[in-house]
Formats: sequence, C-alpha cells, structure tokens
Amino acid sequence: MNDPKPLALVAGAGAGLGQSLLTRFQSAGMEPVGLGRTRPEGTVGTFHQVDLSDPDSVSPIIAKLIAIHGPPKIVVHNTAELVIAPFTGTTLEDYQRTWASMVQSLVVLGQSVLQPMVRGGGGTFIVSGATASLRGGARFSAFASAKFALRGLTQSLAREYQPYGIHVAHVILDGIIDTPRSRELHSLDPSKMMKPDAIAEAYWQLAQQPASTWTHELDLRPATEGF
Amino acid sequence: MNDPKPLALVAGAGAGLGQSLLTRFQSAGMEPVGLGRTRPEGTVGTFHQVDLSDPDSVSPIIAKLIAIHGPPKIVVHNTAELVIAPFTGTTLEDYQRTWASMVQSLVVLGQSVLQPMVRGGGGTFIVSGATASLRGGARFSAFASAKFALRGLTQSLAREYQPYGIHVAHVILDGIIDTPRSRELHSLDPSKMMKPDAIAEAYWQLAQQPASTWTHELDLRPATEGF
Amino acid sequence: MNDPKPLALVAGAGAGLGQSLLTRFQSAGMEPVGLGRTRPEGTVGTFHQVDLSDPDSVSPIIAKLIAIHGPPKIVVHNTAELVIAPFTGTTLEDYQRTWASMVQSLVVLGQSVLQPMVRGGGGTFIVSGATASLRGGARFSAFASAKFALRGLTQSLAREYQPYGIHVAHVILDGIIDTPRSRELHSLDPSKMMKPDAIAEAYWQLAQQPASTWTHELDLRPATEGF
Amino acid sequence: MNDPKPLALVAGAGAGLGQSLLTRFQSAGMEPVGLGRTRPEGTVGTFHQVDLSDPDSVSPIIAKLIAIHGPPKIVVHNTAELVIAPFTGTTLEDYQRTWASMVQSLVVLGQSVLQPMVRGGGGTFIVSGATASLRGGARFSAFASAKFALRGLTQSLAREYQPYGIHVAHVILDGIIDTPRSRELHSLDPSKMMKPDAIAEAYWQLAQQPASTWTHELDLRPATEGF
Repeated sequence: MNDPKPLALVAGAGAGLGQSLLTRFQSAGMEPVGLGRTRPEGTVGTFHQVDLSDPDSVSPIIAKLIAIHGPPKIVVHNTAELVIAPFTGTTLEDYQRTWASMVQSLVVLGQSVLQPMVRGGGGTFIVSGATASLRGGARFSAFASAKFALRGLTQSLAREYQPYGIHVAHVILDGIIDTPRSRELHSLDPSKMMKPDAIAEAYWQLAQQPASTWTHELDLRPATEGF
Repeated sequence: MNDPKPLALVAGAGAGLGQSLLTRFQSAGMEPVGLGRTRPEGTVGTFHQVDLSDPDSVSPIIAKLIAIHGPPKIVVHNTAELVIAPFTGTTLEDYQRTWASMVQSLVVLGQSVLQPMVRGGGGTFIVSGATASLRGGARFSAFASAKFALRGLTQSLAREYQPYGIHVAHVILDGIIDTPRSRELHSLDPSKMMKPDAIAEAYWQLAQQPASTWTHELDLRPATEGF
Repeated sequence: MNDPKPLALVAGAGAGLGQSLLTRFQSAGMEPVGLGRTRPEGTVGTFHQVDLSDPDSVSPIIAKLIAIHGPPKIVVHNTAELVIAPFTGTTLEDYQRTWASMVQSLVVLGQSVLQPMVRGGGGTFIVSGATASLRGGARFSAFASAKFALRGLTQSLAREYQPYGIHVAHVILDGIIDTPRSRELHSLDPSKMMKPDAIAEAYWQLAQQPASTWTHELDLRPATEGF
Repeated sequence: MNDPKPLALVAGAGAGLGQSLLTRFQSAGMEPVGLGRTRPEGTVGTFHQVDLSDPDSVSPIIAKLIAIHGPPKIVVHNTAELVIAPFTGTTLEDYQRTWASMVQSLVVLGQSVLQPMVRGGGGTFIVSGATASLRGGARFSAFASAKFALRGLTQSLAREYQPYGIHVAHVILDGIIDTPRSRELHSLDPSKMMKPDAIAEAYWQLAQQPASTWTHELDLRPATEGF
C-alpha cells in the first residue's frame, strides 16, 4: 500500500492565488485541499465550503482531513476582506467582519493544524500579508488594522512554533494580483499586476527552505511597482 | 460668563497612567473626564463607568460631554487587556475580548470625537501602544495582534485627520508602568519602572507641539530597559 | 563664586536649526557653544569654526571647553550634507564627503564628549535624522546611506551609553526646515515647512525627560506633510 | 559558435558563502567569477584578487569581463568586515575600513555593472545584509553603521534600477554562517549555523523570480535562532 500523498491546505482558496497555490502543490505530488467561503469554478483538488472564522465548522473538517491524510505539510492562510472607505464611513460591522475573516480565521486555522503538524514532524505555515501590513493608509483603517494584526500574530506563531519544526512565514504582497476580478476593478495594465502562479512559486520555494535558512518575511511586488 | 474649560478625555482611565493623564490635564486648566470599565479610587475630575467597546453606551456620554464642554482638545486612548498564554491556551474569546477592548474601543472613540474635533478647530488624539506594537513575541499572540492592529489603525487616522488639524500620535510604552498592581505582579525593582506622571508629561508635550512639528510616533522606556 | 552654567554643544550649528537650538539652550540658562564649518551671521553664544570630521581639530576644542565649563549636559549632532543625484552621477567623493560630514563627525563628537559626560553624571545626546534615515529613495543613494548609517550608529550609542546615564535620541526630521536657504531652494509654501524654533523645543523636551521615560526615536513633520 | 555562458559575479567571494554562490551559479550553467581580497583555496571558476573599494582596480577587471562574457546576469555583493568593540575602543580607522570595504565597494561594484546590465537587458543584483542591518547593538557601532548604510543604498538602487529591469534585493542574514572560520570563532553547535549552500540556493531563487513578483528584502535564519 502506498503512503498517502502529503496534505497541502489552502484557507482562502478563491480564484486567483488560492487556486494557483493548489495547482503548484498538486504538481509537486501533494494532495491539494482548499477551504473557503465560495467554491471557485474548476477548483483544483478537493474544496470545502466553510466559514473560516467559525471553529465549529472548520475544526471537524480539518480533523477529518488529518485522519485521512495525516497532518498537513504545507498550510497557507490567504483570506482577504478588503474595505476601502473613510473612517466615518466604516462601520463597526466592517471592522468586525474584516477582523473575523482575516485574524480570527488565522487563529482557528492555526489551532486546528499546528499541534498536529508538530506531532507529524514539522511543515510550513504561510500567511499572506499586503502593503497594508506595514502602512496604515487613509481610507484603509479596517483593512490595515486587520493586516497589521495578522503580522503580529504570525510573528508570535513563528517564535512559538519554529523551535518545534514549523516554519512560519509572512509574505507582503505589495501590488495587485492579476485575476479576472482585479482586471474589472482596476484600470491597471495587467502586465503591471502580480501573476498568481508566480506568487505560488514563491510560496512553494519558502516551503522548500531547509531548517538552516528559514525566511520569516519577504515582500513580492511587480518590477513596475513603486515602493 | 466664562468660557468653559477645554475638555480632555481619557478612555481607559484606570489607576496609574489614566489618572496621571487626568491630573496633568487638570493642572493645565483643562476639564478632565475619564471613561473606563472600573472607577478607580479617588478619580481625578469626572469619571464615566462604561464599556468602551459599546457604541450605544459610549456615544451618548460623549455627545453629552460635547454639548456641555464643546469638542475635546485632547483625547487619549489608553485601554489595555493583557493576555499572556501559549497559542493553544489562548481562546477565541481571549482574542475577541482583547480586540474589542483595544481596537473596537478605538473605533468607537474615534467615531465619537474626531468629526466634532475637526469642527471645533482641531486637537490632539493619542493612542497608547506597547512593546508588542512592534514585535509579536511567543505567548503574546492575542495582545500583539491587537496592539499591531491599533498601530495600523492609528496610522490610518493620522493620514486621514492630520490634514484637518487633528494631531494623531502613537506612543510605544516599552517597559512596565509603576502602579500598585504592577508592583504586585512583577518582581522588577520599581526604580526600573516607568513613572505614570512622567509618561503623562510626555503625552502633554505631544499635545503642545505646533502644527509645524508634529510627532506621529515615539517610544518611551526606562533608562535601564534593554531594547 | 558661581557654578559655571551647564554647557550645551551643537555640532552643525548653521543658520536655521543649529542657531535655534543654541537660542533655546541659552534661554534655559545654559552656556551655548556652536561648532561648524561656517560661522553663521549673528551666532548665538560662542562659535568654533572647525571641520567636524577631523578629530585633531575637534578634540582639543572640546577638551578646552570641558576644562572651562565641565562636561556638556546636552550635545546635538546636526550636520547635513545633501546630495541629490542619479547613482551614476554620484561620485565616490560625494559618498566619502557625505559619510565623513555626517557619520565620521558623529564618531569624533561622541568620542570627545561621551566619556566625560558619563563621568560628569550624565546628560542628553541627540542626533538629527531625516526622511532618508528610513527610506532610500531614488537619487538619494549617498544621503540615504549616510543617514541610515547615522541611525544604526546612534542605536549602538544608546545601547552602550544609556546604562551609564546618557540619554541618546534620534530625531527623524520628515519635512523641509524653514530657513532662508530652503525658501530659495524649494518652491514650497513656508507655512508647510518645519519651524526651527519648534524643532528646537522638541529637542529641549527630549533633554527634560526623566530617566524613567526616555524616548530613543521620534519623528517630526508638518501637519501638512504626507507620510 | 556557441553563445558565451552568462556571467555571474560575486564580489566578496571568500570561503563559505562566496564559494557556495559561485558553485550554485556554475551548476546552473553560468560563468562564475569571484572577486575579493584573498583567493580562497580551491576557488570555483575564475578569481580576481582585488581591493573591492578601489575603483581603479575594479573597473578595468569588470570592463574586461564584460568585453568577454557580456554584462553579468547575476551580481552579488557579499563583502563583510566585522568589528566588535566598545565605542571608545573603535578607531576612526575601523569605521573607515568597515565603510570602505562594505559601502564604498558596493558603490564601485554598482557603478561598474548596473548600466551595462541595463543595456544587456536586465539581471539580478543582490546585497548581503546582516542582523546589524536592522539593529545597532552595543559594541557593533562600526559594523551596524556600515550595514545600515548598505541597506539604505540598496533601497536607492532598487528604486532607481528596477524600472530598468534590474532586480535589486537585500538579504538579511540573521545567524552565523557555517564556515571553518566560524566554527573556530564561535562555540555554537554547527547544526545551529546557516549552511552556505542553503543561502546560495535562496539567492539563486531570487534571481529566478519573474518581473511580476520581485522580492526586495527577505531574512534568512536557522530554525533554532531566536529573533
């Protein structure tokens, strides 16, 4: 009997980066499983539609996946909930939703996978950040506060779990990802957008780093992007 | 008839820094008003016991204060909810409570005072940060994620409100504040703790900065503190 | 016989901020002494014309000042050598001159005053930074590399001398200082420039901080300045 | 006739990381050329013994290499000059040597290769940083000031050359590199040191990033290293 393929989980596996990550992990011989609010068309591997901020929904799904495949070797947290509005036009509900979908979902995910990954001998845990992880711009108060929170939380996870063999990394995505939706939303020339497959490759390389040289944080941006 | 004294609001006016701030503002001829969960003994000025994360409680109190005193000239956000625990021992409720008491309370406070302050001709809005605003340490995942969030949110407020005459500042308190409670909790020699009156003086100086030289962020730490 | 007035040294005491600092220190009852390449008209207190990067010129002057007045209680390093040019148009001599006038001069100054200040019971040592201390912009390679160097060096001095009672601070001046020269050079409305007297006041407040609450770094910028 | 192999230049090609870089580039089919003060035993590819801070020595060598091989596709700046000493025990000569060997050498290298690389259609230019690029520790004043300078300079180069197709990256090496020399100097268990081949692989991956996703800065540290 063959060993099961190693499990690769992507939380926030929407069209775009989420699907590119699953594709990249599949092509490396892993078992790709996506989790998210909305099942994208033509999803790669298995997809579980779930509210990622809800532990009662997420935990049993992940427990079952671990029972079948063993603990994941790669986990990516990639949810995003963008709010752009003046401070007075941003409601408490906007802040709560943004926080729950980005920060609470990371807590739920981490608490479901990290201890099993430690027992399973280690792995890689990657969190997607943004320009707003480092800079709170005008009209970005909800998004920036959640992305800052995510960065602090990810640092805590790195300092707590790296000694136990889990490589925890935070990626600053400083640009617009080229997806059908962002082509609609932004007037930007697509040649100046970040290609999801190229981002996925960078995440994959992080997961290949040996324990002697782990990256905790890196930025990714198009050559054309000012910074 | 005399003009009313200018209003100085401290949200999170507990024993220690909160009371030192009210004392400092009172000694400068301002009307000191504290808001917080628990009324400290011998509170300076007026105190309103209130859940700062609850807009339905906070807004009417502040509206009434503004009706009496005019918009505040100084507002300080100084709530803290410290959780120190391993990631697996930190509950979702810990994250939610920490976030609500620090981040949601800042949103509620800002939405209650900032527009009136703009209409009132400007003022100073100061947010208390901590070591964990810049570094997510092991066992600090809840606290650090909330303090990071606060920093991002405060940057957004600065970029949105400074053009309208509100000086928004973020203070990194990098040390232990000398209060009766911290003397109980920590074995640290009190001579190595930050004196609340000295911190209050630094906040007061921020509020005195003319518009040509506003500080957005500064750190404060004891001479004896490593960093 | 009266005690001598406490000595306040400003290295880089040109027209503008340098003179405002000397004025502020004099008005507080200190003995103001300026050092610099060019004696500004109407200099406040005593001025010594000297190449600040040359230890053989600087050390004897400072030794003599200390012999007369005792070790300084406040020292400010405020030299600047601005080069704005494309990388290929910036000569090695530009890099060397920029480094010598900003970084080497700080080494020379620190080595002349810090040990005497420790023996004299402490004091304050402040270094002027700039926007380019935190961001290396295009066309600023010489200036930014020197300002970054200054920031790293100042951090080392803080960590080495704060345990011995010297408060070491780094100020990020994020804007254009209002001087006759900058009015000529920049088309900026002077109301959007930083007033030298206001900056000097902020430096003075740093020197007043008690040992329980020392600031290592703060930024100063006009209310109108984006960041 | 075959096209010449693409040129890969390593400035600071000592035993350890320098040689691992040359080996990695050679194994990818590139022409590896090392430059440095001291020829290491068994050097990979060609080695030119040269004072990297001296433009009159470096420029003709690089001009000749470009004449033969065309402009380099990968250039790494990897010089280091470590000084650890109290501020008063660090001489001006220490500061000057440290600055010349790390910062001036980067200027000389950049001015020799960047314009040819632009004309040659682009490439990758990587600078080695250190823990001291981000933190000026006590006893590290010379080293930290030079490493800070290098970081600012590298940012300027990125902002100036990325629009012209040169990917400029800065790598924070936050740990001790496993070399015969560091095994002698440090009592650290070699399993806690960074393996030069692993670092070289990370540099190689940077050079493979497509223009849609360039990293400007990343850190590398052993899993066992606190941060």
